[in-house]
Amino acid sequence: MIRLYHCENARSFRPLWALEELDLDYELVMLPFPPRAHARDYLAINPLGTVPAFFDGDTAMTESAAICQYLACRYGDGRLDVGADAPDYGAYLNALHFGEATLTFPLALILRYGRLEAEPRRQPQVVEDYRRWFHGRLRAIESRLAQRPHLCGERFTAADIVVGYALHLAGLLGLGTDFLPMTAAYAQRLAARPAFQRALARQRTAAAAAGLEPFP
Amino acid sequence: MIRLYHCENARSFRPLWALEELDLDYELVMLPFPPRAHARDYLAINPLGTVPAFFDGDTAMTESAAICQYLACRYGDGRLDVGADAPDYGAYLNALHFGEATLTFPLALILRYGRLEAEPRRQPQVVEDYRRWFHGRLRAIESRLAQRPHLCGERFTAADIVVGYALHLAGLLGLGTDFLPMTAAYAQRLAARPAFQRALARQRTAAAAAGLEPFP
Repeated sequence: MIRLYHCENARSFRPLWALEELDLDYELVMLPFPPRAHARDYLAINPLGTVPAFFDGDTAMTESAAICQYLACRYGDGRLDVGADAPDYGAYLNALHFGEATLTFPLALILRYGRLEAEPRRQPQVVEDYRRWFHGRLRAIESRLAQRPHLCGERFTAADIVVGYALHLAGLLGLGTDFLPMTAAYAQRLAARPAFQRALARQRTAAAAAGLEPFP
Repeated sequence: MIRLYHCENARSFRPLWALEELDLDYELVMLPFPPRAHARDYLAINPLGTVPAFFDGDTAMTESAAICQYLACRYGDGRLDVGADAPDYGAYLNALHFGEATLTFPLALILRYGRLEAEPRRQPQVVEDYRRWFHGRLRAIESRLAQRPHLCGERFTAADIVVGYALHLAGLLGLGTDFLPMTAAYAQRLAARPAFQRALARQRTAAAAAGLEPFP
């Protein structure tokens, strides 16, 4: 049985969305954000204190983009995955990493130093530096979408989940109004997917059942 | 022909090291750091202005960890790669992402706000916050190395290159003296590999030929 530890709208939304796209059975465990501070027992499950933590038999993983690639490869059966022999394999791997390492870390800084830290520790300069960084890097997505409806090949893949989550988080942080036109339309198409909507509904229902307020 | 655009000791060191591990032929193009500011022509090759930029036939990539996975898969012939059907496949993907998304972005912040920015824009609090973050996350490497000599399975893989580069950069930034014992020994073993040493020598020779000072 697959088990996923998740905080509402955190990076662990990526594997949640992938699980819904693949119609897999899984157990969802909701945690308050950040679990390192508010759910100390969780450190016994994931000593890093981060989400996601993902378990599938003997496989234990903590990196959201890696879990999406794993699920696509192991359970995709032709959906979500791009095979190692496909012409778009390099582009697929690149987008899987770009969506997290290049697009999401600036958002984590904006969230931390713009909202989560106590007032005296906030850093408006860092927030502004990485708002500019985020929008600069997003131009690579805009130019890719000018050529095709999804990031790799002609269909929806795990790379769209990884990048799509960054756009979702940016929207929650109030940065969506600055999206360029192709990117804005792409974010809307992704959010309209039934599996995305099911993932949103499932995390909210599970969070409410655990007594957790909406986040962020 | 493979072509790699690189700045000395930047993330593009990862694919350089992987190319040396695999004994592949490639063209190495050295750039001053950051190329966005000091090599404006480069924006025509990579509009993001970042390194690496990597070209192999029709494949164009910009994410260093993704390029390592690509090279291992396409050219590894049993070296560096972990197959999708191997028990350690999830651990392999996780380490490939962890080495960059979790271990390297704090180092980029330490470099930016501790050294590269002009004095009035430096942020000692951010440097200290992410020094602590880096060493906290590094504990996951220490506990993994307590069980085995490499990150995945019983042999050296692309995941060791991705994490090993983070340790190399941390050393250049003066953070290596805080490594826990297993991590310190692992960093030494990696740095002693002939391919690592060839990559160091090749980047220095090429940088000197291009009139570039050692960096950072």
